[in-house]
Amino acid sequence: MVKDQALSLADAAPAPGVFGARILDLAQKLAQWSEEPAGLTCTYFSPAHKAAAAQLRDWMRAAGMSAEIDAVGNVVGRYPSAAAGAKALIVGSHYDTVVDAGRFDGRLGILTGLVVAEHLRHAGRHLPFHLDVIGFAEEEGVRFSAPYLGSAAIAGRFEAAILQRGDAAGVSLATLLQNEGTDLAAIRALARRPESLRGYLEVHIEQGPVLLQRGLPLGIVTSIAGSARFRVAIRGVAGHAGTVPMALRHDAAAAAAEIVLAVEECCGKAATLVGTVGQLAVPQGAINVIPGTCEFSIDIRAGDDATRDLAIADVFAAIGRITERRGVTADITEIGRHGAVPCAAPMQSALAAAVARAGLEPFHLPSGAGHDAAMFGGVTDIGMLFVRCGNGGISHSPLETVTAEDADLAARVLLDVLVNLD
Amino acid sequence: MVKDQALSLADAAPAPGVFGARILDLAQKLAQWSEEPAGLTCTYFSPAHKAAAAQLRDWMRAAGMSAEIDAVGNVVGRYPSAAAGAKALIVGSHYDTVVDAGRFDGRLGILTGLVVAEHLRHAGRHLPFHLDVIGFAEEEGVRFSAPYLGSAAIAGRFEAAILQRGDAAGVSLATLLQNEGTDLAAIRALARRPESLRGYLEVHIEQGPVLLQRGLPLGIVTSIAGSARFRVAIRGVAGHAGTVPMALRHDAAAAAAEIVLAVEECCGKAATLVGTVGQLAVPQGAINVIPGTCEFSIDIRAGDDATRDLAIADVFAAIGRITERRGVTADITEIGRHGAVPCAAPMQSALAAAVARAGLEPFHLPSGAGHDAAMFGGVTDIGMLFVRCGNGGISHSPLETVTAEDADLAARVLLDVLVNLD
Repeated sequence: MVKDQALSLADAAPAPGVFGARILDLAQKLAQWSEEPAGLTCTYFSPAHKAAAAQLRDWMRAAGMSAEIDAVGNVVGRYPSAAAGAKALIVGSHYDTVVDAGRFDGRLGILTGLVVAEHLRHAGRHLPFHLDVIGFAEEEGVRFSAPYLGSAAIAGRFEAAILQRGDAAGVSLATLLQNEGTDLAAIRALARRPESLRGYLEVHIEQGPVLLQRGLPLGIVTSIAGSARFRVAIRGVAGHAGTVPMALRHDAAAAAAEIVLAVEECCGKAATLVGTVGQLAVPQGAINVIPGTCEFSIDIRAGDDATRDLAIADVFAAIGRITERRGVTADITEIGRHGAVPCAAPMQSALAAAVARAGLEPFHLPSGAGHDAAMFGGVTDIGMLFVRCGNGGISHSPLETVTAEDADLAARVLLDVLVNLD
Repeated sequence: MVKDQALSLADAAPAPGVFGARILDLAQKLAQWSEEPAGLTCTYFSPAHKAAAAQLRDWMRAAGMSAEIDAVGNVVGRYPSAAAGAKALIVGSHYDTVVDAGRFDGRLGILTGLVVAEHLRHAGRHLPFHLDVIGFAEEEGVRFSAPYLGSAAIAGRFEAAILQRGDAAGVSLATLLQNEGTDLAAIRALARRPESLRGYLEVHIEQGPVLLQRGLPLGIVTSIAGSARFRVAIRGVAGHAGTVPMALRHDAAAAAAEIVLAVEECCGKAATLVGTVGQLAVPQGAINVIPGTCEFSIDIRAGDDATRDLAIADVFAAIGRITERRGVTADITEIGRHGAVPCAAPMQSALAAAVARAGLEPFHLPSGAGHDAAMFGGVTDIGMLFVRCGNGGISHSPLETVTAEDADLAARVLLDVLVNLD
């Protein structure tokens, strides 16, 4: 093989369809472990969650990997490199789910890594880095309202304060882990040293409609969007719906309505920018009372922080103009702001080249949702491959779908990247 | 006294300030009967309500009127005419209240009638009609969600079906009245024959800011506005707040916001027209989910039905345009439509003349709120006199205020109308 010439996929990959069929079969089997008999719910350290972890570990071992469940519940498999002093390339995603979930969110990425490692071993092909396939134990944040527990531990971002957080039953994370036999001091030791890592790759369903609308099976993620969230309370003047002329009103709901549309307009100005008012209510509203108060949320995300912050400034300026003109006030509380995490240019290039070799158009898009990959930003080079989401792009729902064909393409592209990366 | 020449107020009225001081004193005393120790709550047939009725009856009798509490709880006092075959002119309003009410809503009208009747008797002046001062037992509809029970009975509009309606404790109106010793068959007999009536006058606080803004103590009501009420449910497509680009959204809350502003705009086109979205909510909204549903109410009122119906058509057309453009649907349920009730031209003229004789500008305005007077529309000539509402026009609140000066002027104008009407 001549350097600078990619290993052709035909040399490396199994027959078309083999990966995809196996991924969908494994996803179906993994979904049988659920907290509810109908549908799929698999939250952190539930019996279903522990069974799913054991299943993943057993599949990894059967595929010829070494595999263990670590101190926070991550399933860590390794297909080792033969090279001396090899670094590790992580292919990861999460196996926990939201309540009443789809079977691909997170799991698609683990299973894609698994089938590719399995194929490499059967083919007797070693890589210049260890291939670590990791099923992260907790990404959704359902049980402790603390997402990314699993990937944070591996990325060295686990915050000890989270251990004191309680679940709905009042059980703290610390107590839970100790009851599971975890030495809390061992969590810190899970952190990988950046110099030990070659990179981080994650295959994930898009959880949105962009690829579906464009008729593309795969997309290369440019960045994991930054976000900012606010709660807003508009205070106007309540009044009788019949007796206060329109010109004398200070209607909190009408002001809120204008702001909802301003959020929509301000966040429609850039390609990677989105803005959402997901919560909206007139507390104790009555049909015959002019609203004196209206409360709502604002969620703004963008592929880069400058775009996001410009949109926030736009929205705030609009709120100022609207409230002043209407004689109402706005109490705004910022409840979170997270920077965008860019995907590494070399990883994007490697993914794009492999997508092109698969005969597909390399299409780049930001991820509006958060992913485990974000935890590894700044730790090692990250790359993400999105897979088309069916049914209009719905996720976090039993209606979530991925086709075997698309899963097959994703696995072939991942394999291509791995064998051609170095 | 020459006909066509009004009896001067100076001849007929007590010294300025006497009426007003007495009205405010009686309103304060009447407010002591309350279901709650702090504030005023006096709902239908509560102990406080029955005590207030007895108090009103006793005051009427002390003023020289005959007075009884009728089968539905109305307090009916009469200062009789000496004329043979005299008709009755009713001066009425209600003594029940909303929860945590002000002390003037309804009661101001009863007490104004009471002090005027008291004065006429002390002055030995008889009228060409019986002066019936009526405290209606139920106008607010708090207990049975059935407003105007008292005035409906006197106006001959009491609907027997209402008797089966239950209160929050499951007690039907029929059972309640029977427990109070009422023969249900007697309710129908309360209805006055139209030919027995000379007219109906009601003094009421404006419950809005118009007179306050114009610096006027009194206003002559042109009509009691007609209304129409709707519930609207917008159905769009829920989605992830991060992953669905703005251009691909079908956001139910954004559509609702546009409709809220359309209601405001459509109902700002005519002087007597108002439109209100008092209830607005994204059910189970989440900060990171594009709203799939948004529900709200619409209340539209106008001084005449043509204006109201034109506004409804405008709003519906806007809803059609907005939902089509956004790819969402609107389920609209009409939950009530009531025609406007015009005040009789002769009563408006009589009130305007008396207001002018009191040295005030006769200012006409519609009533956006419903009142007992509406029950008498089509039964006899109705007239309403609004009294300036302080504190920005707030009512249905302990903050509701009327000044002694304004109450005094209202009583003097009422007296003037009564002595000069025929």
